[in-house]
Amino acid sequence: MNLTTATLLISCPDQRGLVAKIANFIYANGGNIIHADHHTDFTSGLFLTRIEWQLDGFNLPRELIGPAFHAIAQPLAASWQLHFSDAVPRLAIWVSRQDHCLFDLIWRQRSGELQAEISLIISNHPDLKELADRFEIDYYYLPVTHENKLAQEARELELLQTYKIDLVVLAKYMQVLSPHFVQQFSHVINIHHSFLPAFPGANPYQRAYERGVKIIGATAHYVTVDLDEGPIIEQDVVRVNHRDTVADLIRKGKDLERVVLARAVRLHLQNRVLVYGNRTVVFG
Amino acid sequence: MNLTTATLLISCPDQRGLVAKIANFIYANGGNIIHADHHTDFTSGLFLTRIEWQLDGFNLPRELIGPAFHAIAQPLAASWQLHFSDAVPRLAIWVSRQDHCLFDLIWRQRSGELQAEISLIISNHPDLKELADRFEIDYYYLPVTHENKLAQEARELELLQTYKIDLVVLAKYMQVLSPHFVQQFSHVINIHHSFLPAFPGANPYQRAYERGVKIIGATAHYVTVDLDEGPIIEQDVVRVNHRDTVADLIRKGKDLERVVLARAVRLHLQNRVLVYGNRTVVFG
Amino acid sequence: MNLTTATLLISCPDQRGLVAKIANFIYANGGNIIHADHHTDFTSGLFLTRIEWQLDGFNLPRELIGPAFHAIAQPLAASWQLHFSDAVPRLAIWVSRQDHCLFDLIWRQRSGELQAEISLIISNHPDLKELADRFEIDYYYLPVTHENKLAQEARELELLQTYKIDLVVLAKYMQVLSPHFVQQFSHVINIHHSFLPAFPGANPYQRAYERGVKIIGATAHYVTVDLDEGPIIEQDVVRVNHRDTVADLIRKGKDLERVVLARAVRLHLQNRVLVYGNRTVVFG
Amino acid sequence: MNLTTATLLISCPDQRGLVAKIANFIYANGGNIIHADHHTDFTSGLFLTRIEWQLDGFNLPRELIGPAFHAIAQPLAASWQLHFSDAVPRLAIWVSRQDHCLFDLIWRQRSGELQAEISLIISNHPDLKELADRFEIDYYYLPVTHENKLAQEARELELLQTYKIDLVVLAKYMQVLSPHFVQQFSHVINIHHSFLPAFPGANPYQRAYERGVKIIGATAHYVTVDLDEGPIIEQDVVRVNHRDTVADLIRKGKDLERVVLARAVRLHLQNRVLVYGNRTVVFG
Repeated sequence: MNLTTATLLISCPDQRGLVAKIANFIYANGGNIIHADHHTDFTSGLFLTRIEWQLDGFNLPRELIGPAFHAIAQPLAASWQLHFSDAVPRLAIWVSRQDHCLFDLIWRQRSGELQAEISLIISNHPDLKELADRFEIDYYYLPVTHENKLAQEARELELLQTYKIDLVVLAKYMQVLSPHFVQQFSHVINIHHSFLPAFPGANPYQRAYERGVKIIGATAHYVTVDLDEGPIIEQDVVRVNHRDTVADLIRKGKDLERVVLARAVRLHLQNRVLVYGNRTVVFG
Repeated sequence: MNLTTATLLISCPDQRGLVAKIANFIYANGGNIIHADHHTDFTSGLFLTRIEWQLDGFNLPRELIGPAFHAIAQPLAASWQLHFSDAVPRLAIWVSRQDHCLFDLIWRQRSGELQAEISLIISNHPDLKELADRFEIDYYYLPVTHENKLAQEARELELLQTYKIDLVVLAKYMQVLSPHFVQQFSHVINIHHSFLPAFPGANPYQRAYERGVKIIGATAHYVTVDLDEGPIIEQDVVRVNHRDTVADLIRKGKDLERVVLARAVRLHLQNRVLVYGNRTVVFG
Repeated sequence: MNLTTATLLISCPDQRGLVAKIANFIYANGGNIIHADHHTDFTSGLFLTRIEWQLDGFNLPRELIGPAFHAIAQPLAASWQLHFSDAVPRLAIWVSRQDHCLFDLIWRQRSGELQAEISLIISNHPDLKELADRFEIDYYYLPVTHENKLAQEARELELLQTYKIDLVVLAKYMQVLSPHFVQQFSHVINIHHSFLPAFPGANPYQRAYERGVKIIGATAHYVTVDLDEGPIIEQDVVRVNHRDTVADLIRKGKDLERVVLARAVRLHLQNRVLVYGNRTVVFG
Repeated sequence: MNLTTATLLISCPDQRGLVAKIANFIYANGGNIIHADHHTDFTSGLFLTRIEWQLDGFNLPRELIGPAFHAIAQPLAASWQLHFSDAVPRLAIWVSRQDHCLFDLIWRQRSGELQAEISLIISNHPDLKELADRFEIDYYYLPVTHENKLAQEARELELLQTYKIDLVVLAKYMQVLSPHFVQQFSHVINIHHSFLPAFPGANPYQRAYERGVKIIGATAHYVTVDLDEGPIIEQDVVRVNHRDTVADLIRKGKDLERVVLARAVRLHLQNRVLVYGNRTVVFG
């Protein structure tokens, strides 16, 4: 028996009959829905949905599902994505000197929690090569300066193509990507070490300390050309108190950062995130 | 324009085509779905769903929706409930001596957060009559002893009937209802002052203190004949530490109890809770 | 037996022997310490402490404790406050139209959780007079316009004096106090309906919605002349998701606001908050 | 300059002058206190304290601090421990098949968050040898059956002695230690995959699922002869909902388990945990 599923992520202008039309498409072809979650955003007048069904017993072969659904989607002015659960996306993880997010992603990938391959690690520092070696992952040390930034980004884009990368994960990369890069490769998730929109930019823990906040946070978001302004996928927080120094905030923050980033990557890999405007729907 | 909505809560054995059949029923009659959430429990083989749509433009008059849906539900062996959003259920709040949950429910009802009427307060103590009077709510002081328990429960059942009560909220009533009572009137929500199944029964805060736990909780559940064993609707917790005495746990617990109970009552009033077995689906 | 306690809140430049000197002062006079918590802020070189001891058996009469401690504090360049646990501070609660924080503070005061008197309610709207009347609290309706603001503030300062107010609680007052007012009366706690420093100023829930955050918060802080910039006493957050409209954020936020404000007021009344720079130490 | 600190953890019957006497001991010898936290448990009449001071400038050499303090402690009937911050305790981590806690502890040790050496891994399964090898940690595969349990425990006790182990961390070892073992070696921290006292013993996630709880938890505690009954060091929880299968609870629980265990181990290594009765004081 084939346990593979297909998932449709759909967004279109709201109108009567959408749930019925989409469900009928699957039912008429013999599909068994195992997850269906709909959301109507009344402010923007958008209907957004995620439907997942078993391929076992489905009458359409894989390669015909897209074209068949296209006939339904077009009159609804719907944009949609189709994914299959047996895909194994290829990740590039970009790091700087801190290893906590990388370590965590490696563990989750090995344990099967992230269905993906970690094909490539890119860093502007040599420090984490030792860790990459321990787990036999290719590591590229590409130091970035003001002068060589565009050249290095060109090299990086080349690597993404060579390794057929589906998703870049900025796991505390600490460098801003150029607008050019983001336009060339748009599947990038970043972890920012603050509760956005508080403390965007540099040194958020230092600034949180100075402001005397009682809670710190971390934010995972898709990268856009505006720094720290992309659609938020996941956030979480932890309580701090007057005894916590900046070093304590950094330490406590690491536990947040790695888990918030990992949740965001997992939700993305499971095709549970739909971006509209600068917001996301996260289908639970 | 009529903003009233109808809501169907449905559970039935899982099978292909359920989403399509239900959505088609609404679409075919011109309904605009504003909330649809489905859940398949693979362990029990059950499909559970909540669908809410606008009555405005719906072709069936209210009184015919139930009969019409019955024709669809019967072949699916579905059990279902139909609710309308302009209903104003009538609550009886049962209290003992503590006023925090009562105070909170009164505020929420007045502010419109709970769409319901607080028709009646019943207590085995006279203490909270003063508060009931301030808000002009009928208050019945019905002290319960081992000897008069069944007689008082008969009186209480009579009051529920007289006041046409839809839901009883045990807002720290601190008395066990007899199985007879629960069989006669089954829409009862209780707040238990622990993180069930930890510390069922009496004095949970004292016992939590003695065990030295670092977190305490509260649990709102439907009342069944088994004490503290009914289906859980909502739970929440708060951190405690070694400085907290039993009195501190009680104080911190009050903030939990009132908010957990209020969330459960609101979810119930919005027809977002479906019980199956000893579990609940809470449609978000 | 006298259960009253005295509490010293002290801050001074850090140096050797501070704990010993302070503890000796109490021990030498026969005092029994029931709470002592010290904090050294190495960044600012400050030592901050809270010591509470029983007056029963203490050799100094109340009125001599201050002068006696002054002799110890002066050579240490310490600033200090002395409080007695049987004091009943007088509160003025300032509101606008929303009643949730006021309702909550009234409940906590009645239940003994806040050891204080609610002597006075001031509002720029007449709406909550009905609630004040139910609990027999004096209510002053003082509408504020651009033109009359300073005149009304003069009237308010007069009322604070007449009622001998110790603490003003801005319980969703939604008006900015003038720098002049804050200089005249500096014991003011405000609740801001966001996770500061995110979304200072107006309409934080609307802006949180637009930014697509996954968590919202509330912040209680002392009021300074800089809007939403005062020392933070307490913060808390709650998770939201794509289904939550602005109205849902407001509703969820109310539960946060009232509990965060109440915790801050209670900590202040228990003399557990020490401000230094723009930060607070909260002694647990 | 010597940044090493000494820490005293003290518990004794409560009486006047304790803070003064202890602080005087340090001040009289020229010590600079950098952390002091006291707790009086009025129920048991115990005073418990943690004091940490810099050795730099302290007049007593290390080896004389204990004997000197003994003279103060004896008349107070105090029990006490003395620790130095430059100690590097030696850990044995015991695992079964799951690697998440081990992986996490390795990361924290490497990053300097845990000041300790991971000297030894013991397991009743061979699975995690591969991971131990990657980080060059000695790994002993000691399968336990009903028949060989006592013999294997003897072997394990021998290993603890050979490796001069200070602390055993049961990082999902999933085996009960015999009372004999616990009496021989008492510094053992365990992580239990539930919110104790809910779901002690086997299969807590399965039972949590069946009970329909809305929150799951994890508990780190010292091991005593009573299974899952030892003094709790740390607990934490995470929200679950009806969509979560048992497999989801296990996955979500892993993130809890590793962080709760790591916090407990860190607190222990920093000498911040004092056990009294079946409770702990955790000095913040």
